[in-house]
Amino acid sequence: MKTEILYGIHSVQESMKANRRRFYEMYIKRDKLSGRLEEIEARAKILSIRITRVESSALRKISGTDTHQGVAAKVSPYPVLEIDKLISEINKKDRNYFLLLLDTIVDPQNMGALIRTALCVGVHGVITTKDRSAGLTPAVSKASAGALEHCLISKVTNLSASVKALKKMGVWIAGMDADAAQPVFEADLTTSIAIVIGGEGKGIRPLVKKSCDFLIAIPQTGTIDSLNASAAGAVVMYEVFRQRTYLK
Amino acid sequence: MKTEILYGIHSVQESMKANRRRFYEMYIKRDKLSGRLEEIEARAKILSIRITRVESSALRKISGTDTHQGVAAKVSPYPVLEIDKLISEINKKDRNYFLLLLDTIVDPQNMGALIRTALCVGVHGVITTKDRSAGLTPAVSKASAGALEHCLISKVTNLSASVKALKKMGVWIAGMDADAAQPVFEADLTTSIAIVIGGEGKGIRPLVKKSCDFLIAIPQTGTIDSLNASAAGAVVMYEVFRQRTYLK
Repeated sequence: MKTEILYGIHSVQESMKANRRRFYEMYIKRDKLSGRLEEIEARAKILSIRITRVESSALRKISGTDTHQGVAAKVSPYPVLEIDKLISEINKKDRNYFLLLLDTIVDPQNMGALIRTALCVGVHGVITTKDRSAGLTPAVSKASAGALEHCLISKVTNLSASVKALKKMGVWIAGMDADAAQPVFEADLTTSIAIVIGGEGKGIRPLVKKSCDFLIAIPQTGTIDSLNASAAGAVVMYEVFRQRTYLK
Repeated sequence: MKTEILYGIHSVQESMKANRRRFYEMYIKRDKLSGRLEEIEARAKILSIRITRVESSALRKISGTDTHQGVAAKVSPYPVLEIDKLISEINKKDRNYFLLLLDTIVDPQNMGALIRTALCVGVHGVITTKDRSAGLTPAVSKASAGALEHCLISKVTNLSASVKALKKMGVWIAGMDADAAQPVFEADLTTSIAIVIGGEGKGIRPLVKKSCDFLIAIPQTGTIDSLNASAAGAVVMYEVFRQRTYLK
């Protein structure tokens, strides 16, 4: 039986809400609980999750970090979806796809931040790579403020193959590229769309970039290197939202 | 003589480019240098900065962190501007102000990320509070990827007093508030404007909020709590940019 240790208030709380993982045990600090931790404890009781009150030092050991915020839980692994399943889930809701393709984002903080924004803006599903990307770990769940627990996510071996499959389904593939001539604000993002964001520093890998329908850039003053990946992601995802809400 | 220790490749490099701090000494790791570190060393030589090659362990001690990336520098403190000076500097370039007011952002990572985005999008100046905000420390400089070194920034004791002064100058004050009825995409952001972003969790403080001309929200699906402050900041700053570029 594979398990992992979720930790942090948002991760644990959102994971219980999302109800996609099995909870085997919950560990809550022994001291007086904050309102949020009391809520978590009450919910865990309703869900009949076994709760163990432990010292903070034990929580540190269990979670492997100081940032546990007083709670951790032994749970089943993150429910990654096969890509067919991802698509069929989305089809139940909306055929005008809004997908996010993450091409080798390696920093868990960026990965978490992008997933958090994706959930907030209403992205239907996220596709990332099995190799060379940050895994969908408890650290990413925490960095996403628990958003990971709600998101529909697939991991693929070959992202350019997925891009091709999506194109056949009528999805337009827009790659973020700092050197692209077209500003994101001048592109038509109202169609069925997948936004591709490349890894920190190197951007989208050449083969994936070649398979994009078009490339877009976020205009910048140029004094410094470039926007952070998660800030760039927030801007482009909300531009998709804006166009789909106000221009349709 | 007050000094501080900048560290990290971007911070040190951008600070030399910006030329707003005095460099008293630079410390570079003794091992073989990467291309970026070689560039930094060459530039430091041109600027006649004294360079000391040291062991990584010594760099760790000097910078107080493991994240020094092989370089640190003893420099004069961050050049905070008086608000009158900030305004007069901006007046040289553009009278259609685009300002960012940060009301008690406490996390250095968020502070750095917001300043980085502000520089990328072309914000003219940033105003933050003397108390209850993350200081403009070397850690913030690093989190901003060195953007802090180029930004014009004031620190004020009383942010609502500054808001009132800006209003008298014809600047519209737009406060970010998750509960606001008006979506950011429906607001007119083409005028002379100051965007106010509140602290993590609590948002803009009541007195400052009351002095805003209008409040705007970033639409969200509501599954989780809310966007991260730096993602929200990126979205609103680029919406100002978009409107000023495409709607004027």
